[in-house]
Amino acid sequence: MARGMNTVLLVGTLVQRPELRYTPGGLAILEMNLAGNDHVIGEDDRPRELAWYHRVTLFGAQAETMAEQLQEGAHVFVEGRLNYRTWDAQDGQKRTALDVNAQRVDVVTVGVRTGEPTVIDARGQHRLKDALNQVLIVGNLTRDAELRTTPSGASVTRFGVAVNERFKGRGGDDQERTAFVDVTVWRDLAEGCESLRKGDAVFVVGRLVNDSWTDKEGNRRFTTRLEGQRVEFLTRGPGSGGAGTRPERTVATGAQARPSKLDIDEEFPPEEDLPF
Amino acid sequence: MARGMNTVLLVGTLVQRPELRYTPGGLAILEMNLAGNDHVIGEDDRPRELAWYHRVTLFGAQAETMAEQLQEGAHVFVEGRLNYRTWDAQDGQKRTALDVNAQRVDVVTVGVRTGEPTVIDARGQHRLKDALNQVLIVGNLTRDAELRTTPSGASVTRFGVAVNERFKGRGGDDQERTAFVDVTVWRDLAEGCESLRKGDAVFVVGRLVNDSWTDKEGNRRFTTRLEGQRVEFLTRGPGSGGAGTRPERTVATGAQARPSKLDIDEEFPPEEDLPF
Repeated sequence: MARGMNTVLLVGTLVQRPELRYTPGGLAILEMNLAGNDHVIGEDDRPRELAWYHRVTLFGAQAETMAEQLQEGAHVFVEGRLNYRTWDAQDGQKRTALDVNAQRVDVVTVGVRTGEPTVIDARGQHRLKDALNQVLIVGNLTRDAELRTTPSGASVTRFGVAVNERFKGRGGDDQERTAFVDVTVWRDLAEGCESLRKGDAVFVVGRLVNDSWTDKEGNRRFTTRLEGQRVEFLTRGPGSGGAGTRPERTVATGAQARPSKLDIDEEFPPEEDLPF
Repeated sequence: MARGMNTVLLVGTLVQRPELRYTPGGLAILEMNLAGNDHVIGEDDRPRELAWYHRVTLFGAQAETMAEQLQEGAHVFVEGRLNYRTWDAQDGQKRTALDVNAQRVDVVTVGVRTGEPTVIDARGQHRLKDALNQVLIVGNLTRDAELRTTPSGASVTRFGVAVNERFKGRGGDDQERTAFVDVTVWRDLAEGCESLRKGDAVFVVGRLVNDSWTDKEGNRRFTTRLEGQRVEFLTRGPGSGGAGTRPERTVATGAQARPSKLDIDEEFPPEEDLPF
């Protein structure tokens, strides 16, 4: 398995004042709901803004410190990791959720030069206009990638990634945790990722997005997934991730408009100036 | 001082086969030179490609493992941190350099869909066309920001950031290190950052770029700095970073063309589906 990388970076607006609570064991927990707008390319190939709402949890002494500072409408910078949870719902079904555990939360001062920094949503809550929403993961595919075409003709590929991380437990012992992340990629990137197979190791840079669907009972269900903007296929030496047997693979990089004219400033590495 | 964040992500091409060497103490060191092209907006507001060459060092068992796999022309993904070094040059002057210490190096398989994935530079070496070059830092300004205007009329602001990190030494003791990073920002972002003062805490997302200048003796000198694409001003509670006394600050976000038409998909957070 690829050594996991699991990094989430968000800048958004707090939709409520977060409430501090404690576990029975006395651990402080601060739960925040952050909202922001991303600038994306829509299915119709046109730029648009897309809203996101993500749940971020901070633990321990930092939670207690930040609880005093964080008000509804504050803008915060979060560095954290994706946290995958499973539980049994009241209907007996197994549920899963992907949210964010914060390692760092800072208040940022926002005042965009022209106009308001936020939009007001249908609930009357502020949402940051020019948010930051970046997720970086390294992991292995849990299933083959599936390419399909939307009714409007856009290519979209979905795959699942297991992100494994080792960490020290409270007692100093080695522990492991895994986040299971659903990844969606669009257009050229979708076509480039079609060849990905179960077990392949990938590095994905993308945005954390909200999604919803209707289950068999007709209930609307919500989920969080990663929309990939860049995907790199990793080979980790002979025999790892299956990529060793297929040396020629297509890397799918962000399908953005690129300038055709090359105007390259070639600066060479500063070798003569370094002490080696 | 703000708790430092120091993350470098690169995908580029190895310009030579890296050579493994050992310190007198037996630590394996693998030094790599990576090259790539970024897509940037030039001083004339037009998109262009800009070449970069960065030195990346990997240590220990990973260095030994990767030395066998890495050939000239290989494409690699690097996760690391900025490493600031100082030394006395032969002319008696103090020199500094900023390069990258890798925590992870992976080979990526690249085959861009149309045409060659690399360009050949003036030395005959391959350089990845659609490289990844992202640096994320949190730190405090070492001097006030300075705004100036280029002869062609573009605004540019420079400031220095000290990135402090605490880490465990080999003996398990707490140690601290600081990277001093020169940051340059352009256009609207330059104007938004003019108000930054010594001590202010910032989060900067940008690209690691090569730069050169001519010193007093007429020698061409090379350096590495960060070109910021997004800057957030952090407040860290009363009294920290000086920002507490100036609550209304301008945040300068990436000065990119934004769609004027809002077409927002408002999905609310999946509260009803979560076990709280």
